[in-house]
Amino acid sequence: MTDFSEWFHNILEEAEIIDIRYPVKGMHVWQPQGFKIRKYTLDILRKLLDKTHEEVLFPLLIPEDELAKEAIHVKGFEEEVYWVTHGGLTELNKKLALRPTSETGMYPMFALWVRNHSDLPFRFYQIVNTFRYETKHTRPLIRVREITTFKEAHTVHATHEECEEQVEKAVQIYSEFFDTLGIPYTITKRPQWDKFPGAEYTMAFDTILPDGKTLQIGTVHNLGQTFARTFDITYETTEGEHEYVYQTCYGVSDRVIASIIGIHGDEKGLCLPPAVAPYQIVIVPILFKKGAEEVLEFCRNMADNLRNAGLRVHLDKRDLRAGKKFYEYEMRGVPLRMEIGPRDIENKNAVIFRRDKLEKETISIESDTFNEEIKSILDDISKNMKDKAWGSFNRFIRFADTIEEAKKGIEENKGIVSFNWCGDEACGKELEEKVHVDILGIQEENISGCNCINCEKPAKCKTLIAKTY
Amino acid sequence: MTDFSEWFHNILEEAEIIDIRYPVKGMHVWQPQGFKIRKYTLDILRKLLDKTHEEVLFPLLIPEDELAKEAIHVKGFEEEVYWVTHGGLTELNKKLALRPTSETGMYPMFALWVRNHSDLPFRFYQIVNTFRYETKHTRPLIRVREITTFKEAHTVHATHEECEEQVEKAVQIYSEFFDTLGIPYTITKRPQWDKFPGAEYTMAFDTILPDGKTLQIGTVHNLGQTFARTFDITYETTEGEHEYVYQTCYGVSDRVIASIIGIHGDEKGLCLPPAVAPYQIVIVPILFKKGAEEVLEFCRNMADNLRNAGLRVHLDKRDLRAGKKFYEYEMRGVPLRMEIGPRDIENKNAVIFRRDKLEKETISIESDTFNEEIKSILDDISKNMKDKAWGSFNRFIRFADTIEEAKKGIEENKGIVSFNWCGDEACGKELEEKVHVDILGIQEENISGCNCINCEKPAKCKTLIAKTY
Repeated sequence: MTDFSEWFHNILEEAEIIDIRYPVKGMHVWQPQGFKIRKYTLDILRKLLDKTHEEVLFPLLIPEDELAKEAIHVKGFEEEVYWVTHGGLTELNKKLALRPTSETGMYPMFALWVRNHSDLPFRFYQIVNTFRYETKHTRPLIRVREITTFKEAHTVHATHEECEEQVEKAVQIYSEFFDTLGIPYTITKRPQWDKFPGAEYTMAFDTILPDGKTLQIGTVHNLGQTFARTFDITYETTEGEHEYVYQTCYGVSDRVIASIIGIHGDEKGLCLPPAVAPYQIVIVPILFKKGAEEVLEFCRNMADNLRNAGLRVHLDKRDLRAGKKFYEYEMRGVPLRMEIGPRDIENKNAVIFRRDKLEKETISIESDTFNEEIKSILDDISKNMKDKAWGSFNRFIRFADTIEEAKKGIEENKGIVSFNWCGDEACGKELEEKVHVDILGIQEENISGCNCINCEKPAKCKTLIAKTY
Repeated sequence: MTDFSEWFHNILEEAEIIDIRYPVKGMHVWQPQGFKIRKYTLDILRKLLDKTHEEVLFPLLIPEDELAKEAIHVKGFEEEVYWVTHGGLTELNKKLALRPTSETGMYPMFALWVRNHSDLPFRFYQIVNTFRYETKHTRPLIRVREITTFKEAHTVHATHEECEEQVEKAVQIYSEFFDTLGIPYTITKRPQWDKFPGAEYTMAFDTILPDGKTLQIGTVHNLGQTFARTFDITYETTEGEHEYVYQTCYGVSDRVIASIIGIHGDEKGLCLPPAVAPYQIVIVPILFKKGAEEVLEFCRNMADNLRNAGLRVHLDKRDLRAGKKFYEYEMRGVPLRMEIGPRDIENKNAVIFRRDKLEKETISIESDTFNEEIKSILDDISKNMKDKAWGSFNRFIRFADTIEEAKKGIEENKGIVSFNWCGDEACGKELEEKVHVDILGIQEENISGCNCINCEKPAKCKTLIAKTY
């Protein structure tokens, strides 16, 4: 993959994931193949969240006065908000914002919903489209003006301590989510100048795309009482006092799908984790004039059999050269291909081809545990893809003792450089300029016995820098 | 239900379906209970559509020039379109419409997607939010400014004949959908002056709410080549000619959920069809000091057992009076309640309560086929609810031979009046004024041997009128 950006655009088109020709900049169409990957990805996420959260759905439009209430928050978004000013031929009395994120739409309702301590904690999430008038260069799934897949969770608690616990839980949920998809990540605490507008602090997940630039793929914010005070969200304690609540929120977006595609893909195209592949298995019958119907019949039974075992299977009966089909399914990233011809049936064998290893293997189709074996091969594919992705990821991370080493690391190795830092904002910003990078965040706090890479005062934290998307 | 409108508003609030206090008129919040009903409803719809359609997702915003291209269409919507005019602090060069429906957003892309006859037919659908700046009185789920659940399907064909077939298929799909939900309906061809802007003709499903007014719950449009010509959607025939395609589109919305709630509900609250009930069964343990743990343990096993059989079961272990729980689950419309106390366990019985019949019954819990019995009771509940709904529906329909009878029918019986009509537009509009109703549409074409109820010329079609939402 010499030019990742070009590869990424090409594969989105060739595999029919996203059509970028929609006539509004930064807004794209999910095609059927892409939609399915998105759907299975969201199924995994919902399953994780539904254990402890409830799904809701809030309106898209936020009145101007609600959006403006929380001053720090609105300052963070005001340059990016799309405004609805007219309904039909009439100018609206009050402008309506397309949500850039939903705090200011949800929290006035939370103020009505929370009454007393027994209502708490509550944990809601929604999966919606949000809008940002991006002025930077847009890229499908990575930097868009309509974020079509914005999963945002919002929780409300009685104490600051519970909030901290919820941040931990959210980090665990996202870790499990990315692990299932085989997406490697770092978890850092964003520097104060880069936290979510209105938050006490922000924890962030970043992955690394094949060009060595990091991509933020998830964030978890401890909001403290900032929004509770702005939107007057209070609860009655057991003693009858009214106290402001504590809140967290956390989100992931379309970028998860960009990561699945970018991180696992290769020169041959997509390579999809079985968990999200529209088809996990494709069966290609190898047909000759003689015995074609028997082979087809055999393949149909096998496909039904595997489907009954809960797998997503496609039987490709098209009258096309097998080689052409192989090319197509490799490009589309189907995890497992099975080829079955008359001789295979005779020998009670099938040829399988693993997309992750690009290797053929012959397996017996006779055994009673055939379906289980196929499932365990798919599990092995998931595991192998994850290991491979973490391998590449780790090669992108270097430790630097000096600014020179950091510069060299970023220039030669791309990816992430890890170093010791004093934690001071002015020093951090100077360092960002010197190395032409962004500070991702703090990976480890309260370190001692070493000095800051930049100002040489005692270092307080192990910190990561990178060129970012 | 003396005042349906009041009942409807109250139950949305009490059962926590929708919160109407969101600070923008006509835009509401789906609460967790409502969201679940919506989700299960959409699951049914997706299952029906996925057999022959592919799901896609298009951007929300449509550029002004695309929306304006199809003159008849834009005329039908221009007074209802919300406009985005600003991004951040910048005025946009080109205004963007919040989709009122997606023809003008999708069809420019269809023009790129359709190349030759082998691409056809294709059938796509999406489930999205759409926006209408309604000037009439808004009502949650019935007349809203953000339609949060707009399922729109769009199909493209090579011939007019295939289009006609697709209209038939769409009518079948919707019939099956409404049948599953136990929602009764009429199917009529809308009069020409009330068809979808841009369509050749519109087939419509209407149901009747308890106040006797009809509610349009689904429409199917044969678009002919109107949009194909406007958006230049052509395909290459086997002979190498370029021909315009033929199209259909069809949609259902939040109103389906309004119908589920309105039609099946009663004085005690919701009565949900098992297919969409968040919990199909609630188990209420009847606890005494002695043996409480055994009863709970028994109930837990039973709940797990039923869950493993694929049912949605809630075990309510709260320390509340059983009567209070009964009241709550009746109000929330849980189809089946089971009460289990120490004596029931001793006798190997359970008391079940059917929400649809409001009757208690004792059943044996010993049998090997217990799960199957429960499932068949749930099926019987679905069937009974459907029959009951069709019974009420049919009582709302009368045939009228004269204008006087039609007037009397509408005034006394509410609902729908059926009559013979000449099919002439001027006559139809005169009739609408005389009876203070709308013509729903034509139920049967090409009748003969009778005269128009209004102008007394020979009648051509059996037609329906009603007061409509």
